[in-house]
Amino acid sequence: MTNSDSDKCWAECLDVAVEVARKAGKVVQEAVKQEKSVSTKSTPTDLVTEADQQVEELIISTLRDRFPSHRFIGEESSAAGEKCILTDSPTWIIDPIDGTCNFVHSFPMVAVSIGFAVNKELEFGVIYHCFDGTLYTARKGHGAFCNGVRIHVSKEKDVSKALILTEIGAKRDQATLNIFSGNIMKLLSAPAHGVRIIGSSTLALCLVATGSAEAYYQYGLHCWDIAAAAVIIREAGGVVVDTSGGPLDLMSRRVVAAGTHEMANYIVQQLQPISYERDDSNNICTAS
Amino acid sequence: MTNSDSDKCWAECLDVAVEVARKAGKVVQEAVKQEKSVSTKSTPTDLVTEADQQVEELIISTLRDRFPSHRFIGEESSAAGEKCILTDSPTWIIDPIDGTCNFVHSFPMVAVSIGFAVNKELEFGVIYHCFDGTLYTARKGHGAFCNGVRIHVSKEKDVSKALILTEIGAKRDQATLNIFSGNIMKLLSAPAHGVRIIGSSTLALCLVATGSAEAYYQYGLHCWDIAAAAVIIREAGGVVVDTSGGPLDLMSRRVVAAGTHEMANYIVQQLQPISYERDDSNNICTAS
Repeated sequence: MTNSDSDKCWAECLDVAVEVARKAGKVVQEAVKQEKSVSTKSTPTDLVTEADQQVEELIISTLRDRFPSHRFIGEESSAAGEKCILTDSPTWIIDPIDGTCNFVHSFPMVAVSIGFAVNKELEFGVIYHCFDGTLYTARKGHGAFCNGVRIHVSKEKDVSKALILTEIGAKRDQATLNIFSGNIMKLLSAPAHGVRIIGSSTLALCLVATGSAEAYYQYGLHCWDIAAAAVIIREAGGVVVDTSGGPLDLMSRRVVAAGTHEMANYIVQQLQPISYERDDSNNICTAS
Repeated sequence: MTNSDSDKCWAECLDVAVEVARKAGKVVQEAVKQEKSVSTKSTPTDLVTEADQQVEELIISTLRDRFPSHRFIGEESSAAGEKCILTDSPTWIIDPIDGTCNFVHSFPMVAVSIGFAVNKELEFGVIYHCFDGTLYTARKGHGAFCNGVRIHVSKEKDVSKALILTEIGAKRDQATLNIFSGNIMKLLSAPAHGVRIIGSSTLALCLVATGSAEAYYQYGLHCWDIAAAAVIIREAGGVVVDTSGGPLDLMSRRVVAAGTHEMANYIVQQLQPISYERDDSNNICTAS
């Protein structure tokens, strides 16, 4: 394909992603009202429901019908043992219900996230907020949007004027919790304006993209939590890096995102790392 | 007044409160889009804006015109040195912008809260979510409602299936942060499903009332953060108590709210206290 051909092709893929995300989001909205059948995955607090699996199946089957040569990485397929490797092929990276714990509680922060990568580069991202219907979209080089309106990150560089988001990972052993807690305390002592934990990585990252928060960091998230959001934040003018400060490694399960390089660098310097098994370890995404 | 007269009277007051909360909420919605003039109160992270003061003035002047014999306790009037004492007189307890830090960042969790007490008993509460327009209302003995639909708390008793909400108080010294952090870690180790921090006490409490979270606790909140919400949670079937497990003391700046007594008791037993000066210390509400 020429550049122009691929540009047209990815634009078409984005349109389909929006359509599928809205459709899936409506299914999630309905499922919130029903009794949920809850199981656990890697830990007693790493939840999954039948709805996660059904919505992922809906998304992947729709996309596979339309783009049979494309590859798919999905949270639930990966948990079921499918390979989780990013190749050069066009690859959809899907979280059918981001914020499963919130979903189980009908806590109104739940999203469908669909990212798309080609040649291992993220091309576009779509995130649909299942409770209020807000749609976040971005395509590389074409800007980021919330409900069709262009969005921009906060340009704040001073942590003492920052609102910072993070999430609790699945690990709950004492050593992990001590590091998790120590990282938050360092930022609160800075003193950052505040720290928020909303229970949905993708929506938290979208709030960085709209400038409602200055930064987000997390250890323990997965490639499907960050794929779509990374494009949205970058296209909104922000930065998405590894917690070491180096380039983002989609499979490394750690991220710092911020409106400015200065804010990202500050947070990178404060964080003590928490170790999680890579998404692509042993060529199998263990979703653990 | 007979019981029937007062019942009719407080019903009318509630209608006016709803009208005023909506009007104030619309002003806040508009103010979110403007440049904010931010100052600090008790600590560098205890923020206040011109909008807080303007919205409180709007609410109190409207209510005072309508009910000239009533008393008023408001966050900003109190910060300006007005007395903060609950007497037997009909008293409105007002937070014009709950979640001021969120408001400053346009983080979409901000509410107007209007509570009403007579003979030191909370009679009704109105909370308006300024971003999505959700309206929570309750009157003693008449049930709790979200946008007019009856709401109920979660009946979960087991903390290992609970989503628990809390907030960071204004104090950021190391000793306070250590206790704050220790309390969260204990609940995460239980292990609770999760802990969320959304930056608005009143909206967090409303999420307990709707059953989207099992419990809420906080040290450092004020009477205007809890007055309206306490009625809403109780009328939704929940419990609101002091962090010691005893009856709620509106001026004590500490609370545990939960869907069930069992959940409230469990949390009470886990918490190590953080001391804040009472709202009615020295007969002046220092808002510190």
